[in-house]
Amino acid sequence: MTSRPTPAQLPTDIEVVNVGLPLFADALRAQGRPVDQLDWRIPAGGDPELLAALTTLLGRHAARIDAANAEVFRRLDTGVPVWTGVATALDVLPDVGPRTLLHCGPAIEWPDVADPLRRSMRAATVAEGWAADVAEADTLLRTGSIRLEPANQHATVVPMATALGPSMPVLVVDNQDGGTRAFSAINQGSGEVAWFGRETDAAIARLRFLRDVAGPLLATAVESSGPVDLLSLAAQGLAMGDDVHMRTQASTNLLIRHLLPQLVAATGQQAVEFARFLSGDHLFFLNLAMAAAKSLTMWAEQVGGSSIVTTMARNGTTFGVRLAGSPAWLLAEAPEIGDALYNPGHGPGSGARDIGDSAVLELIGLGGAAAAGSPAVAAFLGGTMAGAAEVTENMTDLCHGTSSRFKLPTLDMRGTPVGVDARLVAKLGVTPQVNTGILHVSDGSGQVGAGVATAPLQCFTDAVFDLARRLG
Amino acid sequence: MTSRPTPAQLPTDIEVVNVGLPLFADALRAQGRPVDQLDWRIPAGGDPELLAALTTLLGRHAARIDAANAEVFRRLDTGVPVWTGVATALDVLPDVGPRTLLHCGPAIEWPDVADPLRRSMRAATVAEGWAADVAEADTLLRTGSIRLEPANQHATVVPMATALGPSMPVLVVDNQDGGTRAFSAINQGSGEVAWFGRETDAAIARLRFLRDVAGPLLATAVESSGPVDLLSLAAQGLAMGDDVHMRTQASTNLLIRHLLPQLVAATGQQAVEFARFLSGDHLFFLNLAMAAAKSLTMWAEQVGGSSIVTTMARNGTTFGVRLAGSPAWLLAEAPEIGDALYNPGHGPGSGARDIGDSAVLELIGLGGAAAAGSPAVAAFLGGTMAGAAEVTENMTDLCHGTSSRFKLPTLDMRGTPVGVDARLVAKLGVTPQVNTGILHVSDGSGQVGAGVATAPLQCFTDAVFDLARRLG
Repeated sequence: MTSRPTPAQLPTDIEVVNVGLPLFADALRAQGRPVDQLDWRIPAGGDPELLAALTTLLGRHAARIDAANAEVFRRLDTGVPVWTGVATALDVLPDVGPRTLLHCGPAIEWPDVADPLRRSMRAATVAEGWAADVAEADTLLRTGSIRLEPANQHATVVPMATALGPSMPVLVVDNQDGGTRAFSAINQGSGEVAWFGRETDAAIARLRFLRDVAGPLLATAVESSGPVDLLSLAAQGLAMGDDVHMRTQASTNLLIRHLLPQLVAATGQQAVEFARFLSGDHLFFLNLAMAAAKSLTMWAEQVGGSSIVTTMARNGTTFGVRLAGSPAWLLAEAPEIGDALYNPGHGPGSGARDIGDSAVLELIGLGGAAAAGSPAVAAFLGGTMAGAAEVTENMTDLCHGTSSRFKLPTLDMRGTPVGVDARLVAKLGVTPQVNTGILHVSDGSGQVGAGVATAPLQCFTDAVFDLARRLG
Repeated sequence: MTSRPTPAQLPTDIEVVNVGLPLFADALRAQGRPVDQLDWRIPAGGDPELLAALTTLLGRHAARIDAANAEVFRRLDTGVPVWTGVATALDVLPDVGPRTLLHCGPAIEWPDVADPLRRSMRAATVAEGWAADVAEADTLLRTGSIRLEPANQHATVVPMATALGPSMPVLVVDNQDGGTRAFSAINQGSGEVAWFGRETDAAIARLRFLRDVAGPLLATAVESSGPVDLLSLAAQGLAMGDDVHMRTQASTNLLIRHLLPQLVAATGQQAVEFARFLSGDHLFFLNLAMAAAKSLTMWAEQVGGSSIVTTMARNGTTFGVRLAGSPAWLLAEAPEIGDALYNPGHGPGSGARDIGDSAVLELIGLGGAAAAGSPAVAAFLGGTMAGAAEVTENMTDLCHGTSSRFKLPTLDMRGTPVGVDARLVAKLGVTPQVNTGILHVSDGSGQVGAGVATAPLQCFTDAVFDLARRLG
């Protein structure tokens, strides 16, 4: 190198930045040339109608939407949901009716219900005492003698293929700042369990155990301990490798330690039996985290004119989203699980479609949003932490802001992304990723794997159209 | 840039790589010049005698030492210590004698005992019933009526300023492959506790509680659960942000979850009282991890002619190391704690010198060796994970190999360094770093902070001389 002037010369090295489709970049790389590939996409996939809608939402309506979104974000980010009790579903959800099952995801009729959810509904029907066995339960369900209602319509969220009957205990979670109260079922644990789409005697017995043993013991424990700040435990769990969706091991352990004096105060064989169940259920905290998230989205959805997603739920057949301020469900077909690891003997062919209300966690900064902190999630994404970090970065592009309570040690204590903005999803053509389990598609054998599902674009673009219509 | 020839020209930019002392590099940087600084040091600090000893240990004796070290490493890395029971110290340590206190660190006489350890010894003396109060205890200790013995000489390790009397319960840990059995006291928890150098009534009451309540309940729990694989829990805890020394929160929670059925099976007010204690003691697992490490170093120290450190312990006055295959303690003054965070109102002036047997953890791949995985440790090192990673990298330079069981998610699942080689310490002039608490130097107020201590070089160079003498 020199600072003296040299005559002008033609360059002999070509450096290329390729924008958009990677074909040209790939061709140059094949010739040994250095190329920078810029991942640029045509906004809104070049769809003129969608571009027009986005132009108003990001243009003349932008200030109004941004203000609504700021308030929605504040509610999702700062509400403090506490676990206050355990109650019987029928007592706290009187509008559900006595012969009704609450299920995951958008509303659905029996003919469209996916196999694992059908099995779970049959198991719940037997556990409720409405049928003597699953064959009789099938008849009741097929003939419409049992009402099916989306849990989400009743302040409730349930994971995977859970079906919740009126006699079952529910976890009660209060968001005191927002005056909202949300519910979830007690997590059923692993093995032969209805929420994994099993309907064996053991699965039905587990439901009865939760109602007759776990519910009353948990009710006493939480009453005696006083309210439990759930997202404080989740934030600690996140710094300990939980995404607090696919993995809730650290959060569950923190909760067990917190409740230890109350659990030990219980006496008798049932208390020991429950302790054995709790000791083996790594996902116990999942349902509590979901109810906490639901109590926040219920507060956030009271804000009108926002483009932030406050419902994201699947039933194994359809995938539905709702925006804050609107009761309208926007639906698409539930996706198959893309990045997945299967148990031996299983593969993509044996996996049912995406199922469960647990994607509510992705709306408050957990699950896929928190993937970067979780070696357990990384195992599903090529096995490196970089793969997990990409899922978090992807969500960051789609979100209004970053969490003030969920911090990622692996990203130098940056907050996880919070507040999925449907405008950004539609503009980028990139959807949220949801960490989830995979159930068998048809044979009732339960969980066959786990992975990361990619939400379908359609329901987000439909939400954008709907918002544009509402704002005029 | 061009590929055509241009006439030779004097360079106008100077690029510098500076080797060794940074003064020259700093001077160039001050002039705005780019400099790469290479951290090279004169081997053995240029000491001709030490160089001569190292020349034999890394030269003609190298093959023999390397073979011994490989076996020492294998024992430290692959032994499987299990917690098998809780016993009374006098019953399992009959050679200790009835009027003896076991204490942390190298052997020491009363006049040299540091203030926090004196207070702990007085509290233990009262708890044993040998004295009515701490004043009487002081007289007994001062006049030599109570024997002081290093715990390390009796298959036992105790953290911080713990003093262990013969009536106290000990955790029993068996390394079945090696046929070694090690012990530790039950962790005393936080607040007014003797192991932090307190001698209040509450601190003495805590010792009696551990003997009369915690010991029997833990004995029943572990007997009923069966042996507990401690380093499997530690490995999981490490992936959850524990260094398993300064922080054992995740490992403690894993253990509590594991023992939950046994803990719940216990009944009565004492069981609940113990549950409350356990629920609040984030360092409960520390003593178990230490006993596990000791059972491995006891196996490793049976190998002769090795340069790997198998004892590293401090009593607040002296810091001692031993090499595998030799009973000789090499001593230096215990260091002050360098990188530290103090409680409000405290600073370097109020901190006692480095104390406790817990540095045994650094010998098997935990503590400082595992710092890179722990956001909690990072808080003491400038608050970034990079600061914590540096402590692990430092240990890697000094160690024989990397752990096959302790993997760091933050370093792409690389194993933590295991097997501190005194030759490498002496050659580089760099010593292990130990994560530790800090006790008040004189006023008996207990823990005033925590930080990372740097071991004194002298005892490692003396160990090198001793090994060179032994090998001839």
